[in-house]
Amino acid sequence: MEFQLITKDTKSRARAGIIKTDHGEIETPIFMPVGTAGAVKAVHMKDVYDDINAQIILGNTYHLYLRPGLDIIEKAGGLHKFNGWNKPILTDSGGYQVYSLSGTRKLTEDGVLFRSHIDGSKHQFTPERVMDIQRVIGADIMMAFDECTPYPCDYDYAKKSLGITHKWLDRCIEHFNNTDPIYGYQQTLYPIVQGSVYNDLRKESAEYIASKGAEGNAIGGLSVGEPAEMMYEMTDLVCSILPEDKPRYLMGVGTPVNILESIALGVDQFDCVMPTRNGRNGMLFTKNGIINIKNEKWKDDFSPIDPEGTSYVDQQYTKAFLRHMFVAREMLGGMIASVHNLSFYLWLVKEARKQILAGTFAEWKDMMVPRLAQRL
Amino acid sequence: MEFQLITKDTKSRARAGIIKTDHGEIETPIFMPVGTAGAVKAVHMKDVYDDINAQIILGNTYHLYLRPGLDIIEKAGGLHKFNGWNKPILTDSGGYQVYSLSGTRKLTEDGVLFRSHIDGSKHQFTPERVMDIQRVIGADIMMAFDECTPYPCDYDYAKKSLGITHKWLDRCIEHFNNTDPIYGYQQTLYPIVQGSVYNDLRKESAEYIASKGAEGNAIGGLSVGEPAEMMYEMTDLVCSILPEDKPRYLMGVGTPVNILESIALGVDQFDCVMPTRNGRNGMLFTKNGIINIKNEKWKDDFSPIDPEGTSYVDQQYTKAFLRHMFVAREMLGGMIASVHNLSFYLWLVKEARKQILAGTFAEWKDMMVPRLAQRL
Repeated sequence: MEFQLITKDTKSRARAGIIKTDHGEIETPIFMPVGTAGAVKAVHMKDVYDDINAQIILGNTYHLYLRPGLDIIEKAGGLHKFNGWNKPILTDSGGYQVYSLSGTRKLTEDGVLFRSHIDGSKHQFTPERVMDIQRVIGADIMMAFDECTPYPCDYDYAKKSLGITHKWLDRCIEHFNNTDPIYGYQQTLYPIVQGSVYNDLRKESAEYIASKGAEGNAIGGLSVGEPAEMMYEMTDLVCSILPEDKPRYLMGVGTPVNILESIALGVDQFDCVMPTRNGRNGMLFTKNGIINIKNEKWKDDFSPIDPEGTSYVDQQYTKAFLRHMFVAREMLGGMIASVHNLSFYLWLVKEARKQILAGTFAEWKDMMVPRLAQRL
Repeated sequence: MEFQLITKDTKSRARAGIIKTDHGEIETPIFMPVGTAGAVKAVHMKDVYDDINAQIILGNTYHLYLRPGLDIIEKAGGLHKFNGWNKPILTDSGGYQVYSLSGTRKLTEDGVLFRSHIDGSKHQFTPERVMDIQRVIGADIMMAFDECTPYPCDYDYAKKSLGITHKWLDRCIEHFNNTDPIYGYQQTLYPIVQGSVYNDLRKESAEYIASKGAEGNAIGGLSVGEPAEMMYEMTDLVCSILPEDKPRYLMGVGTPVNILESIALGVDQFDCVMPTRNGRNGMLFTKNGIINIKNEKWKDDFSPIDPEGTSYVDQQYTKAFLRHMFVAREMLGGMIASVHNLSFYLWLVKEARKQILAGTFAEWKDMMVPRLAQRL
């Protein structure tokens, strides 16, 4: 993997760049739609390609490991072959789902013992195992195995957890270096900065992670319930330490406003279930604010979903029709909202990139943030 | 509406024709995808147009009347404007759902009193009211209000019910003739033959319906649980009486085999929830037979869903991937299967039409029927 930094904004730390992988290039800043089980929820693959214009999608290691399972993915020739997505894929380490989904789990220095949320079967994730799993999945970008601390998290726990995360990182790197890609294309490994909301821990972690010289670096453990200002403060601190010539990935973030604010702090990659999950609940993000389409006020609004939207669905369907789909509990409602929201997120980062290249990002961001946050 | 009979098969009663409506032409025989609440379930409108190549879709009067309601549909300018489908639409009379869905209903000579299955509110459908509702929906083809008798149904009930259906038909026709379309394009009314599985009642009904000189005629009360042979026998009898120069619509039918057998008996129009409903349960219809994609045997079959299929999904996704979507309970599974099945149904009637035009329908049908019925 290669990262080319093209422009740095002069009034913020925003940057425009290009990540080059064996599955193609990614223009940064970029939003990566989440494809939990190997497919973006409720969206046809052709729409992920052609309508949403995604450049990279994310797969969840925990989910893919349990279903369809590594045997099937390896037989298929990797996740790209299995799901038909021929552009870059990033996989998380599975850690987050182990903590949030599995019924029982036991954290030790060695790794995590857990039970499947599907059938209760017992499994163990260790740093080495998680590297092996991501080799089999065949992600272009693999993530280190870490502990994502919750919020709030007391200082002592955060410090102890960080120690484990760093030790696990060294084991991840060693095992990654001692193994080869299975499918003939390169894979890369991003380490993850943790440290909860504590400045000294975040600083320590960012310095430790930076010292590893990875091709890209991630910031984890944020957007887990802490106030947005705290998230920005931590992101700011970490971005000031992580190397400038490598992409920075802020995991699990966030709202359109979160994304613009974090781009301004120097983040290049984002992922979040919000556009699809909230979409399935009737929340639409637009450049003029947020629509709850289930609201009575849209029942006879026959204007397009988003007259300025870039997606097919924005012009094809009216607000009144989409509201009707949600009220009647038709799957099509969630399908439409998912395509709309993902198209909007991809538009947002593309436009941010344009503004960075034009030297107008800071002003544009200040104009957009209040618009994006308002309720329509 | 106009019907042009183009070719009659010499070895069966199959016909190829064209129905001309103000929203465009329909090549018969045709299958009409069901759009219960105004949209085909789990399928984007662009795919109904471009991938499935539907020529006409069906809306359910009962559902649309309750949600979004007539006020919204009228404000939108009719269902075509509301849902963005600019080709022909047929609506049923709502009777079938009143009997099958609503909690309590009371049938009188005047009409049916029923409670909404959604909120328990009280409503009345009469022949006149149902004509008014379909005027507001703006269907190109409206259906007469009838009682769809269940199976089994004793002779006395069937006879009495038929009397009511015929009286209601006269009231429908009178009210239809005394009212005008609301949106500036023509609408037409199909009467419905009933009579359960009794030859004399079916004959009486077909003769009565034929005497009305409608622009198209429907056969109702079949495919409600009776053996297929009985359905064919009734269809055969009724088709021999209904005028040859008008399209014949066999309501709620059926499997691919049912459709080919009924085309051979002289039917021109079909609708059924089977391709979408069974699709959402993992059943795929193909020209080589029926696939239960949830079956273990497909878990590592990385061949396309249907190598000979005409739809985008047939080539984009593999059987193993589609099975994974169903096992992981992803909406995308039902979405893929719905598009596949509808594309297949539309291919089937298009191919049947080609064979009729080529004079080879009977042989082709005999070759296809055993293939279509087998389990893969």
